[in-house]
Amino acid sequence: MTPVQFDTVALIGIGLIGSSLAREIRHKHLAHRIVISTRSAETLKRAEELGLGDMYTLSAADAVREADLVIVSVPVGASGAVAAVIAGALKPGAIVTDVGSTKESVIAQMQPHMPDHVHFIPGHPIAGTEYSGPDAGFIGLFRGRWCILTPLAGTDDTAKTRLRLFWEAVGSNVDEMDPGHHDKVLAIVSHLPHIIAYNIVGTADDLETVTESDVIKYSASGFRDFTRLAASDPTMWRDICLHNKTAILEMLSRFSEDLAYLQRAIRWGDGEKLFDLFTRTRAIRRSIVEAGQDTAAPDFGRHANDPVE
Amino acid sequence: MTPVQFDTVALIGIGLIGSSLAREIRHKHLAHRIVISTRSAETLKRAEELGLGDMYTLSAADAVREADLVIVSVPVGASGAVAAVIAGALKPGAIVTDVGSTKESVIAQMQPHMPDHVHFIPGHPIAGTEYSGPDAGFIGLFRGRWCILTPLAGTDDTAKTRLRLFWEAVGSNVDEMDPGHHDKVLAIVSHLPHIIAYNIVGTADDLETVTESDVIKYSASGFRDFTRLAASDPTMWRDICLHNKTAILEMLSRFSEDLAYLQRAIRWGDGEKLFDLFTRTRAIRRSIVEAGQDTAAPDFGRHANDPVE
Repeated sequence: MTPVQFDTVALIGIGLIGSSLAREIRHKHLAHRIVISTRSAETLKRAEELGLGDMYTLSAADAVREADLVIVSVPVGASGAVAAVIAGALKPGAIVTDVGSTKESVIAQMQPHMPDHVHFIPGHPIAGTEYSGPDAGFIGLFRGRWCILTPLAGTDDTAKTRLRLFWEAVGSNVDEMDPGHHDKVLAIVSHLPHIIAYNIVGTADDLETVTESDVIKYSASGFRDFTRLAASDPTMWRDICLHNKTAILEMLSRFSEDLAYLQRAIRWGDGEKLFDLFTRTRAIRRSIVEAGQDTAAPDFGRHANDPVE
Repeated sequence: MTPVQFDTVALIGIGLIGSSLAREIRHKHLAHRIVISTRSAETLKRAEELGLGDMYTLSAADAVREADLVIVSVPVGASGAVAAVIAGALKPGAIVTDVGSTKESVIAQMQPHMPDHVHFIPGHPIAGTEYSGPDAGFIGLFRGRWCILTPLAGTDDTAKTRLRLFWEAVGSNVDEMDPGHHDKVLAIVSHLPHIIAYNIVGTADDLETVTESDVIKYSASGFRDFTRLAASDPTMWRDICLHNKTAILEMLSRFSEDLAYLQRAIRWGDGEKLFDLFTRTRAIRRSIVEAGQDTAAPDFGRHANDPVE
């Protein structure tokens, strides 16, 4: 068995991330057997219709019994409950990981349940779309994206290497960091953008002077970018807000402070301040495109497939 | 001459919008002659290299002398100066329009200069990308997008119809509204999103605990959407902030109020309030996609052209 291959992988949760992993594992032959478990009978049935695994069960404990690798892909608020359910059924030597967007909270929820004879290595692939559920997954989701591992002190090196090779095999670059630092980074690059997007879409929805029809028709002028983020899975995002509270509140407060400064510049017609801010933000965009983390195509390439009349 | 055709069109300003119009006019045979004028000799030279027009001049007055249709596509802060320069050279019966993102201010700046013998009809195509300059234009930019006309009382119907047909010929749907209403609508669907995007990118840039390298690497988790808007033309956006101040400050204050409410829900762990907001924002996204104002492809179709390995 090559180090990147597992005999049995158990996927607990089969939404966008879980089902993309199932497709990649099959496509790249990363396991001999894929066992899928999820809480909802309907979702499990759908996963089976899609042929995502080799075995399907509503019992997370049954799913992990034979597994060498267990990947928990559930809303972060459910991590503790899953850990409690699978703990007694885990095979000695198994690697248990997760894909949650907050790491300190997931560790606090899961670690107390983990038996000494397994390797618990928390992780977070920085990848996703605004869609959710088993139909939303696809091959290529992780390609060129970063996956962050936040291993605990004393983690077995061989287990860590196997998990790292697994993520590399599905196309990711792998980084390691401290869970607290992860939570701060994600608060600014992911959690705050989503919260702000949800907020502005809510503000627009509540206006009396501008109708919903106006908002929809003219959304192409900027607003529609925000609506995509604000169409993300509500359960997932509620849980993130509740489970990365400290870092999110810190970033929100800095954002609001900066916005007040900008608002003041607008009120007092300070064109120079506005121009300075609007200029320095361009550099970050360039760096992101250069780092291969976004396309340089105008409008994210939305026009790329338009027919020319 | 069909009503949609003009003998001579003068394009004052040849950035993203002006140069896209030049390309469309040529492509759809909407004029016999395209005259291009811009303030910068370098940009004018580039327009000529790209073959965007039939005549090129640094003098906006010379450009409009023979024109039946004059389209002013400059940052809104420059509208008044352009109007003053072209006023004495305008041909009787000419239609003068603009593409500015704020309408009350543009009208206040331009109208006093307009002679009685021309038809001044302010307009605003809701279309653009994060790129600027004559190289950024392309055929198809206006297709399926709305163009808003904000005609003044007593505007000649024939002139209005000709301008409407012109925008329809380049693929736009045309709407008419009051300039004040336009400015409020744009404040929420365009100006506020851009200001917020500039602001969050600025906040991220200023953090001490999260490095710029972290921000760039992990931007795919939401942040990169904002950096695209925050890479837009600084001069254009400075001018918009200065020229739609009242409506922008109103929308900003509502946004901040809503954000404070959301922040409080996070601080107090009110999952129900968060879930409610995160759920109702999904409907707007669906409506925008159904209205043809955005693609339903995950992540704006960024993955659409990825090769499968």
